[in-house]
Amino acid sequence: MKPKIAIVGASGYSGEELVRILLHHPQVELAVVTSRQYAGQTVAQIFPKFANHPLAKTLRFTEPKADALAQAAQIVFLALPHGVAAEYAAPLLELGCKVIDLSADFRLKSAAVYKDFYAHDHPAPDLLKKSVYGLTEIHRSEIKKAALIASPGCYPTSILLPTLPLLKAGLIKSTGIIADSMSGVSGAGRKAELDYLFVECNESLRPYGVPKHRHLSEIEEQLSLAAKTDVVIQFTPHLVPVNRGILTTLYLAPEHHFGSPAEMSALQEQVTKCYQTAYGQESFVRLLEGKSLPDTKNVVGTNTIEIAWRLDPRTGRLIVMSAIDNIAKGASGQAVQSMNVLCGFEETTGLV
Amino acid sequence: MKPKIAIVGASGYSGEELVRILLHHPQVELAVVTSRQYAGQTVAQIFPKFANHPLAKTLRFTEPKADALAQAAQIVFLALPHGVAAEYAAPLLELGCKVIDLSADFRLKSAAVYKDFYAHDHPAPDLLKKSVYGLTEIHRSEIKKAALIASPGCYPTSILLPTLPLLKAGLIKSTGIIADSMSGVSGAGRKAELDYLFVECNESLRPYGVPKHRHLSEIEEQLSLAAKTDVVIQFTPHLVPVNRGILTTLYLAPEHHFGSPAEMSALQEQVTKCYQTAYGQESFVRLLEGKSLPDTKNVVGTNTIEIAWRLDPRTGRLIVMSAIDNIAKGASGQAVQSMNVLCGFEETTGLV
Amino acid sequence: MKPKIAIVGASGYSGEELVRILLHHPQVELAVVTSRQYAGQTVAQIFPKFANHPLAKTLRFTEPKADALAQAAQIVFLALPHGVAAEYAAPLLELGCKVIDLSADFRLKSAAVYKDFYAHDHPAPDLLKKSVYGLTEIHRSEIKKAALIASPGCYPTSILLPTLPLLKAGLIKSTGIIADSMSGVSGAGRKAELDYLFVECNESLRPYGVPKHRHLSEIEEQLSLAAKTDVVIQFTPHLVPVNRGILTTLYLAPEHHFGSPAEMSALQEQVTKCYQTAYGQESFVRLLEGKSLPDTKNVVGTNTIEIAWRLDPRTGRLIVMSAIDNIAKGASGQAVQSMNVLCGFEETTGLV
Amino acid sequence: MKPKIAIVGASGYSGEELVRILLHHPQVELAVVTSRQYAGQTVAQIFPKFANHPLAKTLRFTEPKADALAQAAQIVFLALPHGVAAEYAAPLLELGCKVIDLSADFRLKSAAVYKDFYAHDHPAPDLLKKSVYGLTEIHRSEIKKAALIASPGCYPTSILLPTLPLLKAGLIKSTGIIADSMSGVSGAGRKAELDYLFVECNESLRPYGVPKHRHLSEIEEQLSLAAKTDVVIQFTPHLVPVNRGILTTLYLAPEHHFGSPAEMSALQEQVTKCYQTAYGQESFVRLLEGKSLPDTKNVVGTNTIEIAWRLDPRTGRLIVMSAIDNIAKGASGQAVQSMNVLCGFEETTGLV
Repeated sequence: MKPKIAIVGASGYSGEELVRILLHHPQVELAVVTSRQYAGQTVAQIFPKFANHPLAKTLRFTEPKADALAQAAQIVFLALPHGVAAEYAAPLLELGCKVIDLSADFRLKSAAVYKDFYAHDHPAPDLLKKSVYGLTEIHRSEIKKAALIASPGCYPTSILLPTLPLLKAGLIKSTGIIADSMSGVSGAGRKAELDYLFVECNESLRPYGVPKHRHLSEIEEQLSLAAKTDVVIQFTPHLVPVNRGILTTLYLAPEHHFGSPAEMSALQEQVTKCYQTAYGQESFVRLLEGKSLPDTKNVVGTNTIEIAWRLDPRTGRLIVMSAIDNIAKGASGQAVQSMNVLCGFEETTGLV
Repeated sequence: MKPKIAIVGASGYSGEELVRILLHHPQVELAVVTSRQYAGQTVAQIFPKFANHPLAKTLRFTEPKADALAQAAQIVFLALPHGVAAEYAAPLLELGCKVIDLSADFRLKSAAVYKDFYAHDHPAPDLLKKSVYGLTEIHRSEIKKAALIASPGCYPTSILLPTLPLLKAGLIKSTGIIADSMSGVSGAGRKAELDYLFVECNESLRPYGVPKHRHLSEIEEQLSLAAKTDVVIQFTPHLVPVNRGILTTLYLAPEHHFGSPAEMSALQEQVTKCYQTAYGQESFVRLLEGKSLPDTKNVVGTNTIEIAWRLDPRTGRLIVMSAIDNIAKGASGQAVQSMNVLCGFEETTGLV
Repeated sequence: MKPKIAIVGASGYSGEELVRILLHHPQVELAVVTSRQYAGQTVAQIFPKFANHPLAKTLRFTEPKADALAQAAQIVFLALPHGVAAEYAAPLLELGCKVIDLSADFRLKSAAVYKDFYAHDHPAPDLLKKSVYGLTEIHRSEIKKAALIASPGCYPTSILLPTLPLLKAGLIKSTGIIADSMSGVSGAGRKAELDYLFVECNESLRPYGVPKHRHLSEIEEQLSLAAKTDVVIQFTPHLVPVNRGILTTLYLAPEHHFGSPAEMSALQEQVTKCYQTAYGQESFVRLLEGKSLPDTKNVVGTNTIEIAWRLDPRTGRLIVMSAIDNIAKGASGQAVQSMNVLCGFEETTGLV
Repeated sequence: MKPKIAIVGASGYSGEELVRILLHHPQVELAVVTSRQYAGQTVAQIFPKFANHPLAKTLRFTEPKADALAQAAQIVFLALPHGVAAEYAAPLLELGCKVIDLSADFRLKSAAVYKDFYAHDHPAPDLLKKSVYGLTEIHRSEIKKAALIASPGCYPTSILLPTLPLLKAGLIKSTGIIADSMSGVSGAGRKAELDYLFVECNESLRPYGVPKHRHLSEIEEQLSLAAKTDVVIQFTPHLVPVNRGILTTLYLAPEHHFGSPAEMSALQEQVTKCYQTAYGQESFVRLLEGKSLPDTKNVVGTNTIEIAWRLDPRTGRLIVMSAIDNIAKGASGQAVQSMNVLCGFEETTGLV
């Protein structure tokens, strides 16, 4: 029998994308979608674009209640604001559900760091130990056995996937890492705020959250785990007028100097091999070759990350660039990818 | 009598903006506009948006010829591709015109560096010594006396104005500078190429020219002059779906460590004072205060650069961000600003 | 001495555009800007893009109070929601101010029609008789003497200017008129509503307000006055992803059939002459010639309307197309144009 | 065994969408893709976004040659310019292929009308009789047996599907029909022309092809067939800054006057029933209910058309609005839909 799925907070952009993917997923049954705001209405009414799917006409949004969720579903996705997600995770886990949380609530191991970055006490610190960081390419084996998966943030996904293999392989220094990212406006969520009006975003390019964006906490924790030392990085997010997509440019310092052509050539081979070993068999990582550079339009609507890199002999740096769909690979696509692993399905099921 | 002005290559985006500004400039007379493609047609026919201006109905595009230009105008703007501009500059200067060149042809002092970055021999190396780099805020006194002004590139403007004062004041190191920029599509020029079609650019975010963009040459030359030592920087441009605007984020290393709150506070004062001294009286530099960060929508259509900065105590870096209109402050607005200085006009004449 | 000006409701898109125009207007002094939300803050703080103007740093938003407004200003622009504007107009007029209202409150002569379309009683029905519809090209002589000017709506401007001359000249039937319009998102105002978020508008094309949009009331009243008979039209607005601009396509029935080439040729001459007579001397009407068709990008940022037309011998219809900037010619630009007339200034003062 | 498919002209926007759909279609095998420009390169190289699909790495673009196509494929899609498509269709049909042509070459029954609208002699007039107009919802039974399917144009699809049932049912007059449409820029094709550059299209709204667009010919032919009388309509296309999507607003005259509420109510029932009968069981037609109006963002990426309508008692008209993805339902999606019918597959196979 197909596992039954619930999505809590299904009316935001991540929730909507989960609905889209799971409606068409051949191995699970979308059983519950919750939304306080739209309770009582059908999926077809709130999301006309899904109305052709037979289930969309009968499935109605409900109020989110842990008991009812646990009775109706074996796997629950939480697409809620941080702080709120944790309130549902604890009872759902106790009631035997598997929980895949798309908020920031369980991405960190340290409640203190959480408080430092999120400005409130962690609502369920005991669960931090149990949660698995849902970056499938990195933590696949733990995800298989997890009860609580903390799906990574969008920026962290675009930064960690290109950086972790290099760091683990000792090819780059763990100091001095800079990540410069730009994101589409869906990253701000479906919130009625002046800053995200069409007229305020169109024809606008702007940094924000400088210099201490919340996503730094999970990025640095994952990098530190990989480097086996404390890593502090520089991260600047920018808001740009596209619906979806994150483009990240990383400035990295190779562990070894490459002053001569021979050294540069050797390093090129090492980096190529490092990425090939890490991701050559991965379905959702596209290592670009030749002159190709990442472009969000080639990944939007998919669960793929594009990665390209260049050595700069003038500066001695390694420049790595990545592109993802912030709502897909950066949120809901990746969450379903981890669900596939958790359930023992083919990892690409229901995803493109 | 008002000086007469010619614009050579008036049908590209920079040329069009020069036409717009100079049609309304109260102290000069737009006498000649050239365009091989549109020769014989009026400004009103090619640019309907200017058709309300009386001159637009009578002023016709002509073929560019140095003799005719020199007879008809005292000041000639060259809005031509690099390599081509130099062919006009030499005879025009000999014939006694003042030349303001918006191409890259006279921005460098070294013909060798030009060849390294532009892949052909410099067409008029003798003129390199005579040209003045037209960054008015920095080279105002030389511009006053110049015969040949090399108007800066768009990216260089967005990078140099925020960086030069810090470098001159010794507040930052001359090593390790990183500039990460994103530009609107007008930066690619009015060229019929697939890469710049609406459908290819809309909903697309992409880096390009990594790691050795041509603008590096002029950026590094100007930084080196200021630092009195050779400066090599990292620069990554990105193409994003806006018509106009460049947003640059700079990663800089303060000369002195600021580990303690007192050191940080002292450095904050120094940076504030440095910028205040450099630009406090400048009409076209807006130093943002409080929580404000640059946003291209606040500068598009104007000759203003917005600058904001943050010290990051976690990484020890100084982050500086700037926003300009690539076609205005980054090209034609700045060129007119230097013309105003050259002619002894109020510097803001005809500009907003 | 320059007349002093107040703008009530200066923080919306029309208010912002009034601020922009009037800061630079050489013959008036911007004395008061009100905004409940931003009271106490300077223009420079709320609109960084105007911060270079010296007045922007000292002029502070205030709470709107009729007494204080009348003491400080001779001319008051109301950029307020309908229903609210009328509350200010009455006391301001009594206190001797000239009032230019950008809301819908005084555009109609009939309080009953107002109630039918705006769903509430008119708040100041006595003033309806005194107000002048501020379409300068049509009502210039009345505007000169007006105390209360009702500045037209954006859609009405784009529809009335192309239609009125034809109707007055008897060239088209007063029946069967269809206006199909598309508008940029600024038309919805600076309101924090989900429907106008970037992600909801970008890559979206949608009709709305079908079939009875409020602007019909003033369009039909003005057409009826011109036709000297009751006119009912069809009007469909659409929301499209641009910041500014309205493009209207009008489907009109010529009064006389043009079955033969000779008849068609004759009608072409009549329409040409009609528009030439009506608008040939107008500064802000651009009658397109040859193959040119209107394009909002040629009018955005200006007070100009572009008009083109075609006879279709296959259907016997006259197709007229117009383009305006909804915030400029469709709102604030036009309002300043009528102020110029009212004050006896050159009509184009401060406008492009 | 799965039928083998060839796509001729696979590098334009329609060709690319065919590649996307057919790569994932479970019941056919994509065997050949042609492109003169990209011959020799793989699908993955030209369309990085498809690179994750195993076939994309091995399938290479070839030069289009009828013999080779007929040997390698049973069904050939022609995604070529009009005039060119016909050159391939004739030999391919003779060699026994089924041909689905996305160009305008076989949409008309009359070679004379073709010449009138396309300005050159029809290259294969004999085939006009054999071709079937591939509007599946209307011509499904003929499509099943067709050898040559002429897939409808994008504008015609958005106009015909909403209009044909009303016309056939005698609910609207065959005279006076007006179709006002706006289209995304992909409709212009992947062509390096100045008019379609990002900067020229972004923040631009413009009509074009007024008053005699080529698509009129097929629209009128299909309407005439349905009405059993010659139908001439008014059609105005507009270019708007979205990648994909057509929004059409139709102005129709009900056959019977609906002056009273009872008459209006009766007509409402008739229209509802008419659409329900025509499309109630169709997988790709979404009849909107309640207050919903079409929005291209709800259909982009899908093969669905959204239709809504309103009676306007003020004017006596029936307003019908539709939204499609011009590249999917308006081109490649619809072409695959007809292929599914032709092959006896479930009609929705491979489509969403």
